Amino acid sequence: MSERPPQDDETRDDVLVRADPGAPDGSSEASAEPENAESEGETESLDEENILKADFVRAVKDALWDEDFDRVYELVEPLHPADIADLFELVDADQRLVLARSIRDLMGVEVIAELNDWVRELLVEALPPEVVAEIAGELDTDDAVAMLEDLDEEDQQAVLAEMEPEDRAAIESALSYPDESAGRMMSRDLVAVPETMTVGDLIDFLREHRELPTEFWEVFIVDPMHRPLGTCALSWILRCPRNIPLHDLMKREQTLIPVDMDQEEVALRFQKYALISAAVVDSAGRLIGQITVDDVVHIIQEEAGEDTLLLSGAGDGDINEPILLTVRARLSWLVVNLATAMLASSVVGLFQGAISRFALLAVLMPIVSGMGGNAGTQTLAVVVRAIATNQLTDSNTWRMIGREFRIALTNGTALGALIGVGTWLIFSNPLLGAVIAAAMVINNLVAGLAGILVPVSLNRFNVDPAVSSAVFVTTATDTMGFFSFLGLAVLVGLA
Amino acid sequence: MSERPPQDDETRDDVLVRADPGAPDGSSEASAEPENAESEGETESLDEENILKADFVRAVKDALWDEDFDRVYELVEPLHPADIADLFELVDADQRLVLARSIRDLMGVEVIAELNDWVRELLVEALPPEVVAEIAGELDTDDAVAMLEDLDEEDQQAVLAEMEPEDRAAIESALSYPDESAGRMMSRDLVAVPETMTVGDLIDFLREHRELPTEFWEVFIVDPMHRPLGTCALSWILRCPRNIPLHDLMKREQTLIPVDMDQEEVALRFQKYALISAAVVDSAGRLIGQITVDDVVHIIQEEAGEDTLLLSGAGDGDINEPILLTVRARLSWLVVNLATAMLASSVVGLFQGAISRFALLAVLMPIVSGMGGNAGTQTLAVVVRAIATNQLTDSNTWRMIGREFRIALTNGTALGALIGVGTWLIFSNPLLGAVIAAAMVINNLVAGLAGILVPVSLNRFNVDPAVSSAVFVTTATDTMGFFSFLGLAVLVGLA
Repeated sequence: MSERPPQDDETRDDVLVRADPGAPDGSSEASAEPENAESEGETESLDEENILKADFVRAVKDALWDEDFDRVYELVEPLHPADIADLFELVDADQRLVLARSIRDLMGVEVIAELNDWVRELLVEALPPEVVAEIAGELDTDDAVAMLEDLDEEDQQAVLAEMEPEDRAAIESALSYPDESAGRMMSRDLVAVPETMTVGDLIDFLREHRELPTEFWEVFIVDPMHRPLGTCALSWILRCPRNIPLHDLMKREQTLIPVDMDQEEVALRFQKYALISAAVVDSAGRLIGQITVDDVVHIIQEEAGEDTLLLSGAGDGDINEPILLTVRARLSWLVVNLATAMLASSVVGLFQGAISRFALLAVLMPIVSGMGGNAGTQTLAVVVRAIATNQLTDSNTWRMIGREFRIALTNGTALGALIGVGTWLIFSNPLLGAVIAAAMVINNLVAGLAGILVPVSLNRFNVDPAVSSAVFVTTATDTMGFFSFLGLAVLVGLA
Repeated sequence: MSERPPQDDETRDDVLVRADPGAPDGSSEASAEPENAESEGETESLDEENILKADFVRAVKDALWDEDFDRVYELVEPLHPADIADLFELVDADQRLVLARSIRDLMGVEVIAELNDWVRELLVEALPPEVVAEIAGELDTDDAVAMLEDLDEEDQQAVLAEMEPEDRAAIESALSYPDESAGRMMSRDLVAVPETMTVGDLIDFLREHRELPTEFWEVFIVDPMHRPLGTCALSWILRCPRNIPLHDLMKREQTLIPVDMDQEEVALRFQKYALISAAVVDSAGRLIGQITVDDVVHIIQEEAGEDTLLLSGAGDGDINEPILLTVRARLSWLVVNLATAMLASSVVGLFQGAISRFALLAVLMPIVSGMGGNAGTQTLAVVVRAIATNQLTDSNTWRMIGREFRIALTNGTALGALIGVGTWLIFSNPLLGAVIAAAMVINNLVAGLAGILVPVSLNRFNVDPAVSSAVFVTTATDTMGFFSFLGLAVLVGLA
């Protein structure tokens, strides 16, 4: 969580030595500094977009291939932990364990915490439980939980058995909360003090208690029952005279996070109220942990990006996921879509006779269904995002339905006119032009309405609209596209 | 940016009074506290997901309709500024100006800063320049820039002319940087001190200089040329004895943000290195501003969610955008797709003769093209996200192409077998089954390869793959779907 968590057993002087420029790790982050880069001599590893260069990665891969482990170490040593974590994703899957072994003492907690879930799982499963336990003991609770939560029950127990009782208790307690809940994300390390303290007392307390976390952004003020009363940003504390009581300084209004709140909801609150950290409370209202914004940033990114993947049925879409899991996720979605494609095709089947008499209908029909599909996807994307960001609520649903209807009518009319006139001119058949124009308007309306009504209804039944909306919308636009075009053609006697 | 920015001209005692629970604004954020809710009596406005309740919004709308402005004020007064901002999105567009007028003195900078861009533009355009200038003067620079950057040149100049010279200079300087760059986002308020200071000097300096920002998370240490040397987290300063020089305490390695860096890149760095704040430097390496994580959180959310909208051609997809702009964005994308749909349809046109002889081909062909489209969209979604998050780089492109090829081959074979056997059994035509199975395999491979090669190539030419990939991929899967199925059918003599 913090970039430089010092060990609890270090003296303060050690902490200072670690922060001193002369310390051995003193230049480990310089690779992130484009401005000061030239003097550091290690930035060949990163390109201007802060991505590890292909040349650099190839050099590491070659060294791994040649089993030249000293060279591997020499190359990797200057990297920032976050870049080492990236490197694991960029080498071939079968080189990852070898890489981990060659840079053993660089595999600090920061690297482990930054690893992609799938890569970490691979490494963790290859390690004996006592080593995993040792690493987990050094990680912040939230990172240790991330490392252990995907292990199977048996491996998890084996690791937990090797841990210090205190760490084990913290992790077991975190694992007792639902997956993706605040309880899994929160850190138990925080500074909580009574309101009777003054600014001076607090500063003295912080100076005396070395076991407190080194990086924190707010101090929580609690009552004797350990229920949150307010918070003080550190900048307020630094700027006030020592004799001011915290009681007078603290901000009483704070956003409390119930421990069972879903992580997506946590992320939305951090965003809405521009929080840096927030107190997590149990069902009795007691302060039991804190969540800081750096942990939330990953979740915001994942949750917001996830909709793109879910809408397309690409599962969690991680490129490091084992290929069989990816196939399973994508194939099950495709099979469902195959069923709906067959449904749409059976609508065409109804008009087989008309098509054999007038094959041009078969040439033009995919335009109507395809354009409906595109328009439906547009509305769906907008609505799914608006629902995910709490922008579309019960209060404005009807207004949005009206809005999408008007957009669909306008776009359908414009596209219908375009394709209608085009068809008329190309095939010298005004009636065919009129039929395709009318079908286009109808199918755009179907697309717009399905694009909003499907996700809104699913959301009302507490089904994630990003997961299942697309199938319904595509089915609607395909079947109605074929039916309106072919049906109208038969109706007006074209075939 | 900060939740409770005090005025520069307040005395410290005023600041304390503002933070005091007895102060009039003392309960303004309580609506975000589900745990302490009962006692506040104002939570009827929010549901359990922290969204404004439909009943509450309806009460506000009714009061606006009845022109009962005291009732409006009474309803809105207890809300958190972020919820007031949301309320503007939830009432009808033509009620927004009236709402703003009825709650004039609640329209603080926090509300203005949190407003949706489109809603803010509407309100700002309705206000006289001197009022806008007054509001802009109270906002943090980044929020003032967000408010003014979308005004047309003339209005912008009128507002700037009314501003204090210092604020005007800051905003003009921010506006001189490219749209969506670090220079637009950064705040000029920061704490920068020389390395010769000790912890004690710094604390005294902070206590004496009231004009400094109240909420900040790191102190920047600069050389005499104002170039960044390092940073100190406030928690380190609070925990160290007064006699320690900052020179020994500061972290030398820091992620510097060049002022012209794109906001998406800024967001990725904050995320990668778990930053709370970062120094922004000009081309000479001088510290000219800072960006804090709460400003980045919005960008991460927007940029990650944006891909869903861009891939579907829904423009920026904001539900408050004026409807004509939405129509224009979506329609231009649909017209491009119409052209590609006509291209695909012309492929069908080549086989018109075969279709009139054997209309079943027209019934089945949409299955092949549609399934290819679905598979292509899956790959595209995964690849676009992987590119956006810097997971897919030059180093692993070939591996990913191989991965997608294998997935496409597996899925294509499975789907081909399924539809092949189905077709054989339903239509008692084994040859037709074999043809559709083969076409399905071919089109899945086309989909998988187009799904990765198109976005990767566009990205190489510095075109945002989310914007234009879908058109190319759909064109590939539609045309190849029709061509492979109808072509094979003719080849084996089915029609």
